[in-house]
Amino acid sequence: MTRYVYDYTEGGDAGRELLGGKGAGLAEMTALGVPVPGGFVVSTQACVEYMRAGREPDGLAEQVDKAIGRLEEATGKRFGDPHDPLLVSVRSGAAISMPGMMDTILNLGLSDVAVDGLAESTGNPRFAYDAYRRLVQMYGDVVSGVSGQRFEDELERMKAERGAAQDVDLTADDLRELVERFKAIYREGAGEDFPQDARDQLGRAIRAVFDSWDVPRAQVYRRAHGIPDDLGTAVNVVQMVFGNKGDTSGTGVCFTRDPSTGEPGIWGEFLVNAQGEDVVAGIRTPEPLDRMKDALPQAYEQLVETLRSLEAHYREMQDIEFTVEDGRLYILQTRTGKRTAVAALRIVVDMVGDGLISREEAIARIEAGQLDQLLHPMIDPRVEYEPAAKGLNASPGAAKGAIVLDADTAEERGRAGEDVILVRRETTPDDIHGLIQARGVLTAHGGMTSHAAVVARGMGKPCVAGCEGLSIDLGARTVTIGGRELAEGDRITIDGGSGHVILEDVELVPPQINEHFETILGWADEVRRLRVRANADTPEDAAKAREFGAEGIGLCRTEHMFMAEDRLPVVRAMILASNEEERRQALDRILPFQQSDFEGIFEAMAGLPVTIRLLDPPLHEFLPPLEEADSPKMAARIRQLQEANPMLGTRGCRLGLMFPEIYEMQVRAIIRAALAVEERTGDAPLIEIMHPLVGFAEELRRLRGLTLDTASAELEQASREIDYLVGTMIELPRACLRSDEIAEHADFFSFGTNDLTQTTLGFSRDDAENGFLVQYLEEDVLPENPFQTLDRSGVGDLMKIAIERARAVKPDLKLGICGEHGGDPRSVAFCHDLGLAYVSCSPYRVPLARLAAAQAALSEAGVTAVAVGG
Amino acid sequence: MTRYVYDYTEGGDAGRELLGGKGAGLAEMTALGVPVPGGFVVSTQACVEYMRAGREPDGLAEQVDKAIGRLEEATGKRFGDPHDPLLVSVRSGAAISMPGMMDTILNLGLSDVAVDGLAESTGNPRFAYDAYRRLVQMYGDVVSGVSGQRFEDELERMKAERGAAQDVDLTADDLRELVERFKAIYREGAGEDFPQDARDQLGRAIRAVFDSWDVPRAQVYRRAHGIPDDLGTAVNVVQMVFGNKGDTSGTGVCFTRDPSTGEPGIWGEFLVNAQGEDVVAGIRTPEPLDRMKDALPQAYEQLVETLRSLEAHYREMQDIEFTVEDGRLYILQTRTGKRTAVAALRIVVDMVGDGLISREEAIARIEAGQLDQLLHPMIDPRVEYEPAAKGLNASPGAAKGAIVLDADTAEERGRAGEDVILVRRETTPDDIHGLIQARGVLTAHGGMTSHAAVVARGMGKPCVAGCEGLSIDLGARTVTIGGRELAEGDRITIDGGSGHVILEDVELVPPQINEHFETILGWADEVRRLRVRANADTPEDAAKAREFGAEGIGLCRTEHMFMAEDRLPVVRAMILASNEEERRQALDRILPFQQSDFEGIFEAMAGLPVTIRLLDPPLHEFLPPLEEADSPKMAARIRQLQEANPMLGTRGCRLGLMFPEIYEMQVRAIIRAALAVEERTGDAPLIEIMHPLVGFAEELRRLRGLTLDTASAELEQASREIDYLVGTMIELPRACLRSDEIAEHADFFSFGTNDLTQTTLGFSRDDAENGFLVQYLEEDVLPENPFQTLDRSGVGDLMKIAIERARAVKPDLKLGICGEHGGDPRSVAFCHDLGLAYVSCSPYRVPLARLAAAQAALSEAGVTAVAVGG
Repeated sequence: MTRYVYDYTEGGDAGRELLGGKGAGLAEMTALGVPVPGGFVVSTQACVEYMRAGREPDGLAEQVDKAIGRLEEATGKRFGDPHDPLLVSVRSGAAISMPGMMDTILNLGLSDVAVDGLAESTGNPRFAYDAYRRLVQMYGDVVSGVSGQRFEDELERMKAERGAAQDVDLTADDLRELVERFKAIYREGAGEDFPQDARDQLGRAIRAVFDSWDVPRAQVYRRAHGIPDDLGTAVNVVQMVFGNKGDTSGTGVCFTRDPSTGEPGIWGEFLVNAQGEDVVAGIRTPEPLDRMKDALPQAYEQLVETLRSLEAHYREMQDIEFTVEDGRLYILQTRTGKRTAVAALRIVVDMVGDGLISREEAIARIEAGQLDQLLHPMIDPRVEYEPAAKGLNASPGAAKGAIVLDADTAEERGRAGEDVILVRRETTPDDIHGLIQARGVLTAHGGMTSHAAVVARGMGKPCVAGCEGLSIDLGARTVTIGGRELAEGDRITIDGGSGHVILEDVELVPPQINEHFETILGWADEVRRLRVRANADTPEDAAKAREFGAEGIGLCRTEHMFMAEDRLPVVRAMILASNEEERRQALDRILPFQQSDFEGIFEAMAGLPVTIRLLDPPLHEFLPPLEEADSPKMAARIRQLQEANPMLGTRGCRLGLMFPEIYEMQVRAIIRAALAVEERTGDAPLIEIMHPLVGFAEELRRLRGLTLDTASAELEQASREIDYLVGTMIELPRACLRSDEIAEHADFFSFGTNDLTQTTLGFSRDDAENGFLVQYLEEDVLPENPFQTLDRSGVGDLMKIAIERARAVKPDLKLGICGEHGGDPRSVAFCHDLGLAYVSCSPYRVPLARLAAAQAALSEAGVTAVAVGG
Repeated sequence: MTRYVYDYTEGGDAGRELLGGKGAGLAEMTALGVPVPGGFVVSTQACVEYMRAGREPDGLAEQVDKAIGRLEEATGKRFGDPHDPLLVSVRSGAAISMPGMMDTILNLGLSDVAVDGLAESTGNPRFAYDAYRRLVQMYGDVVSGVSGQRFEDELERMKAERGAAQDVDLTADDLRELVERFKAIYREGAGEDFPQDARDQLGRAIRAVFDSWDVPRAQVYRRAHGIPDDLGTAVNVVQMVFGNKGDTSGTGVCFTRDPSTGEPGIWGEFLVNAQGEDVVAGIRTPEPLDRMKDALPQAYEQLVETLRSLEAHYREMQDIEFTVEDGRLYILQTRTGKRTAVAALRIVVDMVGDGLISREEAIARIEAGQLDQLLHPMIDPRVEYEPAAKGLNASPGAAKGAIVLDADTAEERGRAGEDVILVRRETTPDDIHGLIQARGVLTAHGGMTSHAAVVARGMGKPCVAGCEGLSIDLGARTVTIGGRELAEGDRITIDGGSGHVILEDVELVPPQINEHFETILGWADEVRRLRVRANADTPEDAAKAREFGAEGIGLCRTEHMFMAEDRLPVVRAMILASNEEERRQALDRILPFQQSDFEGIFEAMAGLPVTIRLLDPPLHEFLPPLEEADSPKMAARIRQLQEANPMLGTRGCRLGLMFPEIYEMQVRAIIRAALAVEERTGDAPLIEIMHPLVGFAEELRRLRGLTLDTASAELEQASREIDYLVGTMIELPRACLRSDEIAEHADFFSFGTNDLTQTTLGFSRDDAENGFLVQYLEEDVLPENPFQTLDRSGVGDLMKIAIERARAVKPDLKLGICGEHGGDPRSVAFCHDLGLAYVSCSPYRVPLARLAAAQAALSEAGVTAVAVGG
């Protein structure tokens, strides 16, 4: 006779495939000596045979009967007993967890007779009738096909009749009557009376679980996830225990460590003589776990002991639900406990210290994305607030201060020491001096790549952009946010992590790079293969990047140097020049600015590589809006530079080829700065000169020539030598496809995944993130924002092609990535898989990237953070 | 002793590799019995050994001496003879033609003594001294490294001294003095006297040719074209002949058929007692060939005979230069003759008729691109004109008429039968009614994809767009074109093939699809594998397409139906709708319009496939410019729909997913139209419903569902059945990469190579063609405009990947192309190579595509139009 039924006390070896995930977990805990409620599992094989034959396999009924007998013996209760009945829960449990299938029937075993026994044994008739009406409802719904809604409607009707606001306002008598009404509904819907025989209830519940394996939703899910149709599900039958049987009973939840701080020691809540539902329904407020120590010292001691062994077994902080029935402890559930980022760090460091896990496991367990919150000021998580409006979460961190409506005011009041938030329709290069002095920026218009967003991210300042609920009346010096009018000077808080705007002063907490974080990053650095650089455009950014552990600069955008307030007039003169000579004159005046910025950056990055991208954006970005043109000549030039799709227009190396004198000036400034720094400090930076937006090898061939010629002339004049590399950004699909030809003229490639995503997907980021992409994400057309997490199968596939083809002609080509994806943990893992040499990201995300890089290396070596716990 | 020198009379078998292209051609003609001047070739092997050893190979000098001896014998003249000297030309001639190398030295053999002999034998001292001064100059420049510019300067100085406007105004004495001055320059520059010994001149000239093989320009060229460095070049030494030796001498050019019409029979010009230079310098005007028949009947007869045998040999119409010296005919050059498109067609049809070539060869020989001129009215090629301005050649053909400055006037005057040219800063959908009535369009602003350009190409109307030299004063109703002011009503001519704007009434010639063209297209249809469809948006276009032989519609753009004057208000109401219900109401009013258009198109394409692209452009294209908004609501909506890069914004299937009701209406209109047409005519069209801009399989999965659901509901309601396919445009790099996933939801793919080029290259077509792309093409960064000829190694590579991956999951997927590349012959060839099922192009280019498709099939089978002739 085939064996279909396994007690948890004996099923340990039968395995997940036969017992399902839930059953195997319960068997494992039982084997550990954890006091779990008794029960047994009907194997997946029974389900498979049931489906095949269309009926219960021979012998199953007998085996279930025997298992019930053993359970009665172990609990000292009897199924259907009129005094203290054995009740059970019935749950499905496939080998692979799967939504759509029947979930749970509780309180199975109750009947018109047994319910009074339960009322008696708990001394709580209200509870007993509530348990019974729940059974009728669940059973009716999932076993007999009576719509759950009909029961819900009846409950609402009863509450209305009794003037009861909530379920808990119904009395025991009310509930007794409700049971009768529910049974009537059941009778009408199922065409039979509610079954009174516990064994009969159980058999039909088990078959209902089997049947639910083949409901359409489950079939669809299996098809979508490639789960074979013939696995079948197991059925778990588990003793119900009750914490509301008097003062030697109770219920609680606890963690093996403090989930807020990570501090070792049990942390939890407890209620004497109560069921979990009481807590959920808000009838009673739980007390600290110490209360249990006093009330039930023996059970408490057993709990402490069990917690210790559970954590030792699962090697993870556990989150446990338990019940004490008549002084006897039952662990109902254990799982890996959720925790704050701070706690997560402390816990793994402590566990390594205790020898519980290895350093590698510690690294693998940290969720890199979660750490972002530690690297910026944030709103105190204990504070409750109501956001007045929501915009794009354009640059993380929170800031608060007085509203100011223009950059000059921001600069003035900011310099005077006041916290100010710059609030604008959108920002332009003219606003830079105000941005520098503001705590954060809020704009009504513009997306994740708007001027405000890019500059704020670069500065590590919070920014909420494209906030539709914001309008500004510059005449009246007022703003309206989410319908409420405020005056300049009124205080607000913005949260660039959530996009929230709050019309009050909310408590913030500072960034928290603590010792545990440092410890783990140190371990990570020993493990990772990917180097981590930062995107930094100023000496200040470069210093901040070093502080966070950056190993060089992967992207230094020279255009930001053009935008500083004192330079913009000269840059504009250069753009307005009518001929090359005038342009060269203006460029000669810009050169010293660029050189001095480069010197500052090179000093901060002594001995490390610095990748400098030559001028990239279209020239019109340096000019004001047409209506602010200060001369007819400027207006004409603005009109002339207007483009239908500037993202795909005259920018990048196209500019360099049209106006070679611009790139010449930049190369000259780079070389002179390097020579100056070397002379001053004795340390030569490792310069990498990068040409943006190359799509054709011929572009780079010419620009490489220009770069070498210009640099050689400078070095010759100085009679000095200096090493430098010349390379390109790979940010166009064509560049990926023809990377072989381009590689011939490049010492390095850096993938510009922002633009590569825009062109590969045909998504203008500004337009998409303010428009259709929002809907795409809401409606699951796309699983995630491709500008945040790299689109592996599209953009990533192009990168693979690019690497393969480039390496075929130049095996030792230096490869990196400098898009914002460089700071996204999953994208970092992909870069590791691709075999890149480095990622580069904003300074504030460098620690995350270091950790993510280590996790990728560990994952490759087979070390991953497996989901553990019951 | 290795043989290095071959006379043309004996070299026939030595082959191109040894003799070079030029030498092998002369040997071939000599073998044919064609009277070419005598001479010999120094083999490439001599060059290779010279380069290897750094000196002339042993025995070469002797072999050259002997060859000169044989040449003296054959011509009866002697090298360096003081009375009637033998003169030769020296030319390089590699196996593969290659610019950058030394080209030609003429008149070699002249000296202070021999020049007088030449003067005497020609009776023309002026000619003799001019020939000598040219030798000194050429020899100085290419053999002895004396800058040619110094000679040119001296010539200019002499002309100034003599008050001579042109070279021909100098007298024989002047030229004799110029020779002296040139020799002085030579002496100073070369450090020696000009060599007087003919044999010495020759030896050094041969070495100079060898040396020129390795000049940097030639090296660069070889590297770029993959020509091995060790091929070497041959050297041709050919007797000079003179047509100015009296009345039994002369010179001429002739064609074996009329190059204008293709009519059989010799066609040419002749001058008694003259050299070719006389014609070039404009001293004398040539006369018809008949003159030669009278003056030199024997030579004429020999010429006619030779022409016959040359054409029979090369099986191509020949263009010949000849000279008669003392009654003796010399053919100096023969090559394939250039001809008009009309002539080209007639010639090959005649040649097939004569059994000279096969039909396949006839097809292969037509230059498909050239035929374009036959399919539109064009400026009479005999007319000379001065363009006043130049814009983009946005839609081919020429048109003339009165300037009108707005669409209403254009409509009014056009309807009244007047020829008008609509002249606007740019056009919008509001101008459609004017465009329909105008002969052509001229705009000051916008590129190849501007509204005016796209609509004009669709209508087959000439358009010159983005004409910078045009400004419009709407107040004064005047325009300024190239600096000249004209009033509305003044007549102009525009040529959309060249972009020229002409301020007068120029004679036009009508399109010429003649019998020869039809004949060849008929042959082409038998040969080609690619199907040819047309892009057509209206019943009129569809009819025109059929007329030109289209086998279906590959792209029917539904948005143009939205833009008709009577529909635009309803379309705007739809866009301005505040909710789905309002939008549906407006759509219900649009449906009948769409349906009736579809019915017209389906009737015109009875039994053929019709691919309909659902709405593609961003909605703001249907709204007027902001300043013309007629309500605050419209202004707000225009602002809301504004995008930074509309090309990458909310358009294509993104619209379809945001506003499913739009696509539903379109599908409904398609199905209803098909049912109506089937009912009326009994013929069901083969409908293909196409979703644009898909990048993710999920997009198409949803839209396919929408399409099937909507169509099924319509068919159910009608209780009818109809076949239709659902597919997608492949126009994003991501779609190419993930074509496997997308193919699962598609019955067909159509490559939209316009947008695919924009995204793959990161070129916004509008911006590029008005901006950097112009410079890229001028400076040879790119060899050709990728929007005209498909970028094979970039865009084409993505297409290959797409096809490979899609066919892996769906081997019989129907594949086509509907970008404008479908009408470009080279791109058509590529589509053939890719194995596509069809190309689709504008109706006016269908004949070209048919021919190009046949040529591609023939090329695959090994039949190509080899360049032939001397």
